[in-house]
Amino acid sequence: MNIKHLLFGKPFPTSSAHHERLDKIRGLAVFASDPISSNAYATEAIMRVLIALGAAALSFTLPIAAMIALLVLMVVLSYNQTIKHYPMGGGAYMVSKDNLGRGASWLAGAAILSDYILTVAVSVSAGVKAISSAFPEQPALHEHRVLIGVGIIIILTWLNLRGVRESGTIFAIPTYAFVGGVLLVIAIGLIRHFGILGSPLPPRIDTVKEHGVTGFEYVFLLFRAFAGGCTALTGIEAISDGVQAFRHPAPRNAIITMRAMAIMAMSLFIGISFLATHTNISEQSLLAEGTESVLSQMTRIVTNGVPGGGVLYFWVQTTTTLILILAANTAYADFPRIAAFLAQDGFLPRWMSRLGGRLVYSAGITSLAIMASLLLAIFGGEEQNLLPLYAIGVFLSFTLSQAGMIVMWGKVAKLKPGEELKTQVTTLHHEPDYHIKRIPSIIGVVMTFLVLIILAVTKFREGAWIVLAALPLIILLFHIIRKHYDHVAHNLRLSGLEPAALRDPADVAIVPIGGVHRASLRAIKYAIKFSDDVRVVQVVGSQEEEDISRQRWEQWQNVVPSAKLVFLHTDFRDFLRPLVDYIYSVNHDEYPGQLITVVVPEFVPDSKIANLLHNQTATMLRLMLRGYEDVVVIDVPYHLRKDQGEHSDTLPEPASATK
Amino acid sequence: MNIKHLLFGKPFPTSSAHHERLDKIRGLAVFASDPISSNAYATEAIMRVLIALGAAALSFTLPIAAMIALLVLMVVLSYNQTIKHYPMGGGAYMVSKDNLGRGASWLAGAAILSDYILTVAVSVSAGVKAISSAFPEQPALHEHRVLIGVGIIIILTWLNLRGVRESGTIFAIPTYAFVGGVLLVIAIGLIRHFGILGSPLPPRIDTVKEHGVTGFEYVFLLFRAFAGGCTALTGIEAISDGVQAFRHPAPRNAIITMRAMAIMAMSLFIGISFLATHTNISEQSLLAEGTESVLSQMTRIVTNGVPGGGVLYFWVQTTTTLILILAANTAYADFPRIAAFLAQDGFLPRWMSRLGGRLVYSAGITSLAIMASLLLAIFGGEEQNLLPLYAIGVFLSFTLSQAGMIVMWGKVAKLKPGEELKTQVTTLHHEPDYHIKRIPSIIGVVMTFLVLIILAVTKFREGAWIVLAALPLIILLFHIIRKHYDHVAHNLRLSGLEPAALRDPADVAIVPIGGVHRASLRAIKYAIKFSDDVRVVQVVGSQEEEDISRQRWEQWQNVVPSAKLVFLHTDFRDFLRPLVDYIYSVNHDEYPGQLITVVVPEFVPDSKIANLLHNQTATMLRLMLRGYEDVVVIDVPYHLRKDQGEHSDTLPEPASATK
Repeated sequence: MNIKHLLFGKPFPTSSAHHERLDKIRGLAVFASDPISSNAYATEAIMRVLIALGAAALSFTLPIAAMIALLVLMVVLSYNQTIKHYPMGGGAYMVSKDNLGRGASWLAGAAILSDYILTVAVSVSAGVKAISSAFPEQPALHEHRVLIGVGIIIILTWLNLRGVRESGTIFAIPTYAFVGGVLLVIAIGLIRHFGILGSPLPPRIDTVKEHGVTGFEYVFLLFRAFAGGCTALTGIEAISDGVQAFRHPAPRNAIITMRAMAIMAMSLFIGISFLATHTNISEQSLLAEGTESVLSQMTRIVTNGVPGGGVLYFWVQTTTTLILILAANTAYADFPRIAAFLAQDGFLPRWMSRLGGRLVYSAGITSLAIMASLLLAIFGGEEQNLLPLYAIGVFLSFTLSQAGMIVMWGKVAKLKPGEELKTQVTTLHHEPDYHIKRIPSIIGVVMTFLVLIILAVTKFREGAWIVLAALPLIILLFHIIRKHYDHVAHNLRLSGLEPAALRDPADVAIVPIGGVHRASLRAIKYAIKFSDDVRVVQVVGSQEEEDISRQRWEQWQNVVPSAKLVFLHTDFRDFLRPLVDYIYSVNHDEYPGQLITVVVPEFVPDSKIANLLHNQTATMLRLMLRGYEDVVVIDVPYHLRKDQGEHSDTLPEPASATK
Repeated sequence: MNIKHLLFGKPFPTSSAHHERLDKIRGLAVFASDPISSNAYATEAIMRVLIALGAAALSFTLPIAAMIALLVLMVVLSYNQTIKHYPMGGGAYMVSKDNLGRGASWLAGAAILSDYILTVAVSVSAGVKAISSAFPEQPALHEHRVLIGVGIIIILTWLNLRGVRESGTIFAIPTYAFVGGVLLVIAIGLIRHFGILGSPLPPRIDTVKEHGVTGFEYVFLLFRAFAGGCTALTGIEAISDGVQAFRHPAPRNAIITMRAMAIMAMSLFIGISFLATHTNISEQSLLAEGTESVLSQMTRIVTNGVPGGGVLYFWVQTTTTLILILAANTAYADFPRIAAFLAQDGFLPRWMSRLGGRLVYSAGITSLAIMASLLLAIFGGEEQNLLPLYAIGVFLSFTLSQAGMIVMWGKVAKLKPGEELKTQVTTLHHEPDYHIKRIPSIIGVVMTFLVLIILAVTKFREGAWIVLAALPLIILLFHIIRKHYDHVAHNLRLSGLEPAALRDPADVAIVPIGGVHRASLRAIKYAIKFSDDVRVVQVVGSQEEEDISRQRWEQWQNVVPSAKLVFLHTDFRDFLRPLVDYIYSVNHDEYPGQLITVVVPEFVPDSKIANLLHNQTATMLRLMLRGYEDVVVIDVPYHLRKDQGEHSDTLPEPASATK
């Protein structure tokens, strides 16, 4: 217990839950690390596709980035409405459940959960890759990348289990350090570019010729570049899933934080995209794998010759690595919450909906860690193999969420002023400007669905098929789990219960013993208290064994005079089977349809290791009797006194067979 | 159950135990594989030491082999007397226990058990090495030697678990095939050597000069050569440990088999030693590591030019590999028996003394397999690293056994004709020729003690220290285990028991429930049958939860009118701690010194996997209550009916918290 407190901190009372909620500063750090970290690679993802159309096509980078920023604006506005109308959180899952039906909500849940697992695996392996690239003279870093990755996951898990406030505080530092560093680089870059101060930036030198790609293929590649850049969108839904992590008024704070996050992330994205296409980024590096990243090149060029530029470069490099790893933290914030919603609805094991000692969904956090570690190990810690699987789930949930919002606006449209509609999970009111408010969702659903199709098609063979194949399986699992819970509830329901249906206990008590000693006498005495028909049963391997036991018994029978002694003979050294058979026959032949009672003397050694020295007969018997509906098992414990160090020269009567 | 039968065969009844005993043919195969397999390397071990004294010194090989054969004769005669006087088996352990006291018997037991574990690890790794040397073009064999070794151990374990008769039958084939093959080679070799038939063998060509070693060092090296050859003795004690594995009359059959084994093993040893020093074995190969073995060279030379010689050579090579692996089987035959003797005496966990379904000590067999596999893995499957640890234990047990026999003869000497002496484990009679019969033990104890010292000194730094350090630790373990059993027996003993010391059950029953449903009503009804003070306890997190539950309860209170409802409030989402605290306070404050009863409703899903979907509250509660001496736990099971496939659209009342 003390070790647990030391590791994870003292448990918080439920009543202090509001203290553990996040302010906007921490909330942004917890939920925004994923979308903000996308800036480490989003611009590069666009440029790497465009370079196939020749150097001139790189000028499309900025317009594409602007379009993505516009899409982000639409999606954020749509999610703002989601937060407002679904203030309990749950994002796409809750919207789908309320507006599109169970099937769509399952799809949204499965998509978002699998994507969060991938987020952890991808961002941790990207972080490990960044570290090992920084120290090429240490090949061990690359060699043990799976181990290092799992180590990082364990640290993230540990911090998250300590509570959302504490982890939010710790993770805020690198997040803001990265944003601040890159914003400074962008500012210096713009000042130099526009010749306001310092030397102008070196202009880009086009070295890659046009490739003669035209027509449909040209357009397709533009779309691909757009889809590649859309990775900048992953994580922007995060806040809508975890609205209740914020302080009162939670929806308002969540909306403000989401907008701040979007502005911050898009400023970085547009800024990086502008500078990266207006200075001398190596075009050759875009054509090859494993080269210096665009962000690193840009930072190096911008800070070159600036006082303190070296420090700034190092700062951006270090915080980039940290933010790549921290992107995983957004998944830690949301996966357990979505899983808890699904568990409350009976689609995941119900224990996933229970808050742990530190008021976080500990089971969900641990499950995420285990599955992400497995994924990391299966894919050998290779970020490149995991990336094609990533983002499909997010765009599927974007599409479902916005489609759900359109349906919701349809319901709102029908409400007259003052009227209200109670849906499954929320209450809708008349809103006169619904036709304006729903525009972002309409634009958003078309755009995100388009990106989803592009992602699925272009990445299908590289691994997207795995996700598309996994989704139906996850949904099947939801179905099976829910069916089981329905079944349990149906069985346990009290409606329609005839009081007679509750079985009557029969007046019989069977006490299996391994020998005549204090533990067995105590159990027999207990049995006599409530039953007139106490049968003390011993399994023996030979007549000799029976005689010895009968003799010992006769000496002590007077203590428990009403108990009868029954010997069962076995020729197979298995003492449990004859006992269980006897118990079954008493139940089946003598007391059919009644509860019969088995009283098990169980002695408890003073240390757990000592259990290894005893047959776990009591435990085994209990497990075997679990299969019998009408058998009640009573454990009568007998604790060993503390060791008094006696050490006899001949071994006394063994005390086996009940333990 | 059926899978178990399929894998290990149907269980044998205890009454058929005599059918499962070994005849002499199978007995020899089971127990002799270890000493017979020593012929694959014992002669070579002598020659490799002698070559350091120059080629001429190789002529000492045969005299040394003859001396070893004489030592074998003494040891076998001594052990024959052991078998006769200790027909229950247990060899050195039983002799030491009866004549030298507990300390010596612990030393003998520890020595022999650790040596058997080493036997398995050494012989399996030697076998794997022989296989991988035969296929040098398959480096994977060497690379995965630990895995292959563990695989072989698993197969040996499986066969041994199927019963001694069955494994004896299987293992007889390669044992006799090896003996037959090598005897044929020796016969052909002698015929050719003495010019009776065929071409004479090529004579040895001395290439290694005298090394100028003289005096004390020369004698020391002769001793080392002698000690090296003594590996041929390992395993000759085996039959004395497992006398009871033989058919009636067991001691007589065991003695005959032991003599046959000694004659067989020594014929091979002397034959190989003669031929190896009288034909052209490469002397350079004796100086280098990893060269062709002496047995292989000798077989090649002898069979060269003989019709069918190639087949015979292949035969000997193949059966050599098999017998090297099968040497492990001797350990499988004896380790579990010695462990069972120690367990009966309370020095090892008592379950090691129980016969399994196939009338073998399954627990001992499995323990041996696990420890040998661990050893194999720790030493990386390298036979060379394991060898220095080997044989120390056997010679320690030889020395103790023969010292014990001398003490026994001392007791016999004092008996007059017709008188008998009942010792701890056997009965001694007057024997007039005791002073002749004890001679082998006297010679044996001196010789084996000498070899023990030589082995310990010459191999100390290479690894013998590990064994010498492990022995006291094993003995400490014996001591601790025995102390625990003494403690248990002392606690459970009935002598001196005041009937009042058995606690009285108090008239109170606490029924913790997670909700009002069929399973909890059944448990409450059961509790009412035997108690007038039934307290239904529910832990709730809020007043709201309490109100809902109270309302439901009022509907059903009439079914169990006498039960009282108690609500415990928690602010920490931990439902077990408040329950346990309440139970403790009822026990401590209301009924001190009496047994109080907790009735736990536990519902049992229809599949084991479904358990994953429920909190194991009942199990956890039982574990936590184990710590309380005065708490009796009653499990009232409620089985779920078979799934009827109902699938509602809204989730009914959850049935959590008791499961």
